[in-house]
Amino acid sequence: MNEFDFISQLRKRVRSRQSSDRVITGIGDDAAVLEVSPGCELVITSDLLIEDIDFRRNSAPPWLLGHKALAVSLSDIAAMGARPFCSLLSIGLSSDVWNSNFKDEFYEGYLAIADRFGVTLVGGDVSESKEKTVIDSIVLGEVRTGRAILRSSAQPGDQIFVTGTLGGAAAGLRLIELGARVNQEPGGRSQEADPPSLDGSRGISPTVRVGSDSNSDDDSIQALLLRQLRPDPRVGWGIVLGEEQLASSMIDISDGLSSDLAHLCDESGVGAVIESSSIPIDKDVIRLCGRRALDPLALALHGGEDFELLFTVAPENAARLPKRVDGVQVSRIGEVTGATGTIRIREKNHEWELEPEGFEHFS
Amino acid sequence: MNEFDFISQLRKRVRSRQSSDRVITGIGDDAAVLEVSPGCELVITSDLLIEDIDFRRNSAPPWLLGHKALAVSLSDIAAMGARPFCSLLSIGLSSDVWNSNFKDEFYEGYLAIADRFGVTLVGGDVSESKEKTVIDSIVLGEVRTGRAILRSSAQPGDQIFVTGTLGGAAAGLRLIELGARVNQEPGGRSQEADPPSLDGSRGISPTVRVGSDSNSDDDSIQALLLRQLRPDPRVGWGIVLGEEQLASSMIDISDGLSSDLAHLCDESGVGAVIESSSIPIDKDVIRLCGRRALDPLALALHGGEDFELLFTVAPENAARLPKRVDGVQVSRIGEVTGATGTIRIREKNHEWELEPEGFEHFS
Repeated sequence: MNEFDFISQLRKRVRSRQSSDRVITGIGDDAAVLEVSPGCELVITSDLLIEDIDFRRNSAPPWLLGHKALAVSLSDIAAMGARPFCSLLSIGLSSDVWNSNFKDEFYEGYLAIADRFGVTLVGGDVSESKEKTVIDSIVLGEVRTGRAILRSSAQPGDQIFVTGTLGGAAAGLRLIELGARVNQEPGGRSQEADPPSLDGSRGISPTVRVGSDSNSDDDSIQALLLRQLRPDPRVGWGIVLGEEQLASSMIDISDGLSSDLAHLCDESGVGAVIESSSIPIDKDVIRLCGRRALDPLALALHGGEDFELLFTVAPENAARLPKRVDGVQVSRIGEVTGATGTIRIREKNHEWELEPEGFEHFS
Repeated sequence: MNEFDFISQLRKRVRSRQSSDRVITGIGDDAAVLEVSPGCELVITSDLLIEDIDFRRNSAPPWLLGHKALAVSLSDIAAMGARPFCSLLSIGLSSDVWNSNFKDEFYEGYLAIADRFGVTLVGGDVSESKEKTVIDSIVLGEVRTGRAILRSSAQPGDQIFVTGTLGGAAAGLRLIELGARVNQEPGGRSQEADPPSLDGSRGISPTVRVGSDSNSDDDSIQALLLRQLRPDPRVGWGIVLGEEQLASSMIDISDGLSSDLAHLCDESGVGAVIESSSIPIDKDVIRLCGRRALDPLALALHGGEDFELLFTVAPENAARLPKRVDGVQVSRIGEVTGATGTIRIREKNHEWELEPEGFEHFS
């Protein structure tokens, strides 16, 4: 099959789904044509994922990679307080991978999460690569004019919040490096429209191939692997924070809390103090770290790829903040200060400076 | 330098330039925020370029690659009849390449052509790659509501036109494979804002390192190398055809005339007949092919990457077509027929079926 036949097939798969009514022309022309609502601004992001740098092809089934490719960009759109509506995907595959079932399974995972969030795939590119798989994920969202939540508008006195829990994705990555794998139920997932649930009750069995852990550890390992391999972008939170004008600034946690809080403070020209005991550490991280002499707080502070939202709220707006959105809670972890560029962390009676130690390329 | 420092530098470089007034927030946040004019639709495309498949790093200086990365996507926007206004660039580099002067020169070429067409770089991604350089080029344009020119709306009886000349880029690729190279003037281009001119009078000397050619052949070789390495997207033609509602359908020639005309006919459910003597073969191709026993017509019919526009015009609109836009002429090469899926070519008294023989991945 050449790329034209494949694109033609893909177009049919996309057309058979619910499509955003903003799509005038999708896959199959030189470019996609989109309608943008009056009074709205457009928000756009791209994320490049390269094999053996950002992912390993043998550490997860292709559909999980398809899920993650879209999830990371949806997280960026959420971090702007915007509502995603369409996407493009550029993908480069070696001819070996092209001739395997990789691309079908990859797009299945991609289209499943796209459906879940009302996103229509409208274009992209398919190319050959010499060896490594390359994915560039592009998502467009919209936000009411003037309501995009930037990194640069935090004010001293604002409260700092984070959605969900932290440290799980980094722990999942360590488990993968130790050889842990998610298992698919035999003959399972391909008949399902929904992606597997986080608790493993759909699509992925809780059994993992890993050494000598007890059953309850197995459940934790499974949950942490999914935190790394199947991130859940906080699309609902992003929309609520944008529409209700609740957040004064926002960023998603992709590099790690310490790094991403530093980015936000740099852009806003402010500092921050956070409370160690308030950081919502993933409960499975706490359980497993205790037996492995790892520090759960370090994973929560510096581990990347949790794709939670980190945002600031003016004191007068804090009471309006919902307790949960889509079942995901939020934690208040600290306060913005006027000490430009300085982030401090408080633990009982101690307080020290928090250096960004999250992920960076070319460090 | 890590990627954050580089992105911060790049942001300053972009900010110092003329920016589209549609850019609310550019590089430096989770996503870019853009304004779209009322009554306009958005047009978006992405093009993935992978080292040793779509380009070779040693066959041209980095700034030419930067130029081409944006040019190929601008060509897609032109093929929709739209006006480009901003772009994103995702780039993956090995640490060796990262630590060379590649990225600075690459972005210099990229930003020079962006400036020329009023395009603002608003985002993208920087990642590490194991070995090969990977580039995904995303461009957004806008077009008045309902005026986008699709591939799918050609009608039997429409006349078929092509901008510029054909075959030059494919000939340039063959010359590169034979070892021909463009030379930069010593210390030259980095002081220049404008990209070099096609005639080699600015920035690139007409001297090329190649075997036993005479001086006038050298000029032709130089011009053909630039057709391959520094394509000139027909942005002006695209805007005119869209705004004046002159074209009934359009595609850009990236795979080759025979393939791209087949794509257009497939999408429109029509056929075509073209006149061999009307095909505007590049004059340098004719000159050099004569001495090398190559068929210039074959290069013009099947050679890819000329990035000219191929479009159809209803008979009643043909008289309104401008002779030239931005100095680029247009040629009428044939007519749309009702013979769905069949493309015929006429040469004197002969007529035969033209099979698509242009470029495809995974063939």
